[in-house]
Amino acid sequence: MPTAISPLAPSSFPEMPPIAGVRLATAAAGIRYAGRTDVLLALFDAGTAVAGVLTRSKCPSAPVDWCRARLKTGAASVLVVNSGNANAFTGKSGRVAAKLTAEIAAKAAHCKTGEVFLASTGVIGESLDATKFAGVIDRLTAEAAPGGWHEAAQAIMTTDTFAKGAAAVVRMGSSAVTICGIAKGAGMIAPDMATMLSFVFTDAPIAPAVLKALLRAGVGDTFNAVTIDGDTSTSDTLLAFATGAAAARGVAKMTRLSDPRLPAFRKGFNAVLANLAEQVARDGEGARKLVEIVVEGALSKKSARRIALSIANSPLVKTAIAGEDANWGRVVMAVGKAGEPANRDRLSIWFNGIRVAHKGERDPAYDEAAVSATMKKPEIALKVALGLGKGRDRVLTCDLTKEYVAINGDYRS
Amino acid sequence: MPTAISPLAPSSFPEMPPIAGVRLATAAAGIRYAGRTDVLLALFDAGTAVAGVLTRSKCPSAPVDWCRARLKTGAASVLVVNSGNANAFTGKSGRVAAKLTAEIAAKAAHCKTGEVFLASTGVIGESLDATKFAGVIDRLTAEAAPGGWHEAAQAIMTTDTFAKGAAAVVRMGSSAVTICGIAKGAGMIAPDMATMLSFVFTDAPIAPAVLKALLRAGVGDTFNAVTIDGDTSTSDTLLAFATGAAAARGVAKMTRLSDPRLPAFRKGFNAVLANLAEQVARDGEGARKLVEIVVEGALSKKSARRIALSIANSPLVKTAIAGEDANWGRVVMAVGKAGEPANRDRLSIWFNGIRVAHKGERDPAYDEAAVSATMKKPEIALKVALGLGKGRDRVLTCDLTKEYVAINGDYRS
Repeated sequence: MPTAISPLAPSSFPEMPPIAGVRLATAAAGIRYAGRTDVLLALFDAGTAVAGVLTRSKCPSAPVDWCRARLKTGAASVLVVNSGNANAFTGKSGRVAAKLTAEIAAKAAHCKTGEVFLASTGVIGESLDATKFAGVIDRLTAEAAPGGWHEAAQAIMTTDTFAKGAAAVVRMGSSAVTICGIAKGAGMIAPDMATMLSFVFTDAPIAPAVLKALLRAGVGDTFNAVTIDGDTSTSDTLLAFATGAAAARGVAKMTRLSDPRLPAFRKGFNAVLANLAEQVARDGEGARKLVEIVVEGALSKKSARRIALSIANSPLVKTAIAGEDANWGRVVMAVGKAGEPANRDRLSIWFNGIRVAHKGERDPAYDEAAVSATMKKPEIALKVALGLGKGRDRVLTCDLTKEYVAINGDYRS
Repeated sequence: MPTAISPLAPSSFPEMPPIAGVRLATAAAGIRYAGRTDVLLALFDAGTAVAGVLTRSKCPSAPVDWCRARLKTGAASVLVVNSGNANAFTGKSGRVAAKLTAEIAAKAAHCKTGEVFLASTGVIGESLDATKFAGVIDRLTAEAAPGGWHEAAQAIMTTDTFAKGAAAVVRMGSSAVTICGIAKGAGMIAPDMATMLSFVFTDAPIAPAVLKALLRAGVGDTFNAVTIDGDTSTSDTLLAFATGAAAARGVAKMTRLSDPRLPAFRKGFNAVLANLAEQVARDGEGARKLVEIVVEGALSKKSARRIALSIANSPLVKTAIAGEDANWGRVVMAVGKAGEPANRDRLSIWFNGIRVAHKGERDPAYDEAAVSATMKKPEIALKVALGLGKGRDRVLTCDLTKEYVAINGDYRS
């Protein structure tokens, strides 16, 4: 387990207001870790809408299967999250453990088991002993209280070196709604699914279908645009809960995508997702540098995304950045292998605004000293211009260090 | 530059006989390295056929462009290979350098420039000063002699820790033909193209079209089934040269794919490719373990290949193996993210023949001590059975160690 906090971490956990209709509590159930919390319980007031985006893995965890089946109703009463054990590839015992957890929570919260949502993160392939939750969940249900985001974010950490939270307040006429989110990430992060665990909560009154559309659109340029190692977890879960409690303060329900208030809400909602996703990149396992990759001049946004991901997932590019080496030759390699339209002789590459390559050759004004100096910074902006079209996209990643290998070579043992 | 030889290296360079019609010479042209050879010249007797497989990168090196244009004729007189500089992403100066090299070689060997084949490996994006070849190639042309495979293999190395060669002799009636190959690899190795530099030579009399068909079929389960880091070089080149000199010993020319002698020749030819490809995996940058990944029970061979590559390129699987951890949970993850049909509850996984997971759960007979012991071996056979169909494939890779990061974080600087 890593002990040092990522050098890219925010200076502190943000101020996050309570959300009306959401109560939280955490406990140490002794799932795997000693001396820390590993269970988070969230209780929602009646009428809470839920939407989710789940991993596209063909081998999803039992909680992912559970959530996928329950998301159809769009109603939530309880969320139970544990760290230390992913309850993935646990066969029948995994399904039994998920069901038992939901039953325990439903009984404690006096709701239907179908309104209980579950997420587990940690080791894959070990049975989860759900009986450990029995007394714990009863106690958490009694203790649950508004706020407590920092503790909630801490309880769901695995190899994360800092707790991740973000909040936004959106004006709605004479009132306002609040959006709070927490996330855990670190390794096994790649797009093309929801990536890692993240839970977003709001008191906005919003219909499940609208919340779902908002969430699906929101992940594209946030969580799905972050990659640590190109690996996709069996457990990736992003759930959004809307209690609707702001209706009591005069905020009318948003029931259509054409609602004139939706753009403002979407902006705040997406800002929370983007903030959390960036924190995940900042806590990439062993990361020393946050790397933003912008590809422009591609034939389409989709093509730009593929090229950006090819660069972001290239071990040779990532190790070069770890070595503070502006090795644009490897960027060329990664562009070339992406399988997308590219013309070597139109390619230009920048590191932190310094153009190092232009139209297929090293920049005539290349200044090794200036480039070396900028590569020492903790944040690297790598831009590639293809010169073919107007497609542009952006992806966040981090460097690949010896610490990544150390963390992941020693994790299970 | 690494100095320690890979622990997975063969005990010695193999015995390799001369090939009639092929003469070799090497020299130190001072391209980049001090105190070692960096140029290989091969001269071919008149009538030598050539076939090639080149990188699919959209940003190929100047020598790759050169070879692609010249392969159409199927005739070769000279091969010039240099290490230290890839002549890739060097724009117009790169094209000029390739042309100048070919002209120097053609003049020295009294052949057409179109019969000169080129390959360069090393740093990308630095201009190659081809004038350095001028006197050197004249001298090499005069010195070239049969044999000298070990020196040839050494001259083309970059971050390789050992020289790679393989040979086979195939009976053809009352005579025999010989196949010799050399390769360089180490990093930036991934399939879906020819991967790294490799040159195969034979005295078999074989029509260019047959040689081409043989080579294209041969790479599929050899070079294209090896991955070190999923990265594809701009310079990957595999060329096969057939001098036809065995015709003088009574071996009739193979002009059709239906030639009854072709299966035996193909077997020897593919064995050389497979041997070289395995050596490339054994010399993966920083590699401590050779990893064979077999996927069976897939819906097709193609599907099995994709799943095997998903496992082989997963940083989390590779670091776990480096840590001698039979982390089959990460194997499940890599199967799940491959995007191919898979059923979690039918999945079984073996490490070195020990079944660790069966039908979606940890094997009931799982023995941590036995599994831990086998993971300490230098060769790891990882088998995944999907239980869906009859598709099977095999891929070779290596583990991902801190040394990989060190080698690639310090390479250019």
